[in-house]
Amino acid sequence: MHIASNNNFPTAAGLASSASGFAALVSALAALYKLPSSPSELSLISRQGSGSACRSLFGGFVAWEMGSSPSGTDSLAVEVAPRDHWPEMQALVCVVSDKKKGTSSTSGMQRTVETSTLLQHRIKEVVPKRMEQMIKAIKEKDFTTFAEITMRDSNSFHAVALDTDPPIFYMNDTSRAIIAVIVEYNRASVAAGGAVKAAYTFDAGPNAVIYALEKDMREIIQLVCYFFPQSMAFEDPMGIFPQGVQSAVPEGFEVNVGKVTEVGAVSRLIHTRVGDGPRVLDEGEALLAPDGSPVALQK
Amino acid sequence: MHIASNNNFPTAAGLASSASGFAALVSALAALYKLPSSPSELSLISRQGSGSACRSLFGGFVAWEMGSSPSGTDSLAVEVAPRDHWPEMQALVCVVSDKKKGTSSTSGMQRTVETSTLLQHRIKEVVPKRMEQMIKAIKEKDFTTFAEITMRDSNSFHAVALDTDPPIFYMNDTSRAIIAVIVEYNRASVAAGGAVKAAYTFDAGPNAVIYALEKDMREIIQLVCYFFPQSMAFEDPMGIFPQGVQSAVPEGFEVNVGKVTEVGAVSRLIHTRVGDGPRVLDEGEALLAPDGSPVALQK
Repeated sequence: MHIASNNNFPTAAGLASSASGFAALVSALAALYKLPSSPSELSLISRQGSGSACRSLFGGFVAWEMGSSPSGTDSLAVEVAPRDHWPEMQALVCVVSDKKKGTSSTSGMQRTVETSTLLQHRIKEVVPKRMEQMIKAIKEKDFTTFAEITMRDSNSFHAVALDTDPPIFYMNDTSRAIIAVIVEYNRASVAAGGAVKAAYTFDAGPNAVIYALEKDMREIIQLVCYFFPQSMAFEDPMGIFPQGVQSAVPEGFEVNVGKVTEVGAVSRLIHTRVGDGPRVLDEGEALLAPDGSPVALQK
Repeated sequence: MHIASNNNFPTAAGLASSASGFAALVSALAALYKLPSSPSELSLISRQGSGSACRSLFGGFVAWEMGSSPSGTDSLAVEVAPRDHWPEMQALVCVVSDKKKGTSSTSGMQRTVETSTLLQHRIKEVVPKRMEQMIKAIKEKDFTTFAEITMRDSNSFHAVALDTDPPIFYMNDTSRAIIAVIVEYNRASVAAGGAVKAAYTFDAGPNAVIYALEKDMREIIQLVCYFFPQSMAFEDPMGIFPQGVQSAVPEGFEVNVGKVTEVGAVSRLIHTRVGDGPRVLDEGEALLAPDGSPVALQK
């Protein structure tokens, strides 16, 4: 069998590109052989290629259940809410340049399991409670709770990575600077009587994903462009800047908390939203990006 | 009363300079009024100015006992071993430049207590065991165990700082680079059939303290100068480089793990060893630095 695989997302950058690839591979093979498997069953198989691939078998909001069997056969993904449940939810991926070769997430997590004295407490006490709260927050479209859990759990994950011997650092000084900007952005909003408007999270790499509701994304992109000047024009797939981005700092934001980085410290911004799962295309059908534009397929 | 206080150590740099100041103040007052207090009793008082000041009431190797009373009256310092117990133990302080204003250790720890979900596990399960192992390692002059606990506990401390809401980062990219160099230095030594030769630790700031035995310090200073080029000549208080430091990488060290930083990323190197506690000087007596040279007192 000849399999041609193509990915339009940055690879090996801690952005779960291998997860999307393994999910596509498994669902393509299942479709080809007309296997009667549910997405959750397929998620079990894809998980063997890359843990987080199990989540990519679904569209919408997905939970990866830890399971309790030592064999791992009940560690699979389930849908929490479909894609159209919370259409206002958007994400801004800040691709952070990092010349140093990082630790792969699979080998890193293995060392953490072997050496961290905090990991078991995180697994047994911290994560299960947060999973419950997070599922509730998504179902109720409660952005404040969603944001708080997202940020705290990102920090907790990186804390146990640091508590590994030798320590694993996925975030760098640019990642830290993004956190400082989002923390101040929320502080200024709450101080003015508003709500928490943005949540950062970092996977196994220095890149930030900033979650926010559609109504605040314009302001956030302007803010990010202020502190992290871009070398390329913002791609703007949703067409919210017809005249291009004018970087700006919102009222009440204490500019001194941040430092404007050199151009390219954040090398690319990807504005996106909750997508769908794997799909078999009809002959001649174009694959559409989240913004509705056709995705070019290359050999 | 007029009190003139002077300190020859970098202040507000996360190097416990305020601890030394409060310890000196408390012991000077106790001496002036001829109070019949033991160093442990004085450590209780000095701790109210700066927590770690309680340790500075002693020379040699000192443990700060957590205590169990809610009033804190049994949280004090005790001597583990006198200064001359392990004279081969030395330290290299790497002062890391960091333009950003950091979080003070006292206010930072308060936020960690309020928001970290990992801190209580660290306090109850992780630290007490390590305290016991560390005291044993010092008494037995077991450098391998000393080094392992030092590094792991530094990482654990910074992990709970990161697990704070909002997160606290004391270390920066230069700190991370120092860790990478020490990890590789030990790996190369062990791979060649040797032992762990250096231990890093970071307090509430980006500066590293590297502990090593006297026999390895020359090699370590050369290594640090290779990856972190200095703008000033090494002060060399113990006179181990009569011709000045020639930076060098030891045999078997994988140079690619590190990146030579710009000059001044590590702005100063302080080579020191275990010192004594507070002392009342006789009239006309000069204060001596750890290397035996007189310390200039300024008004």
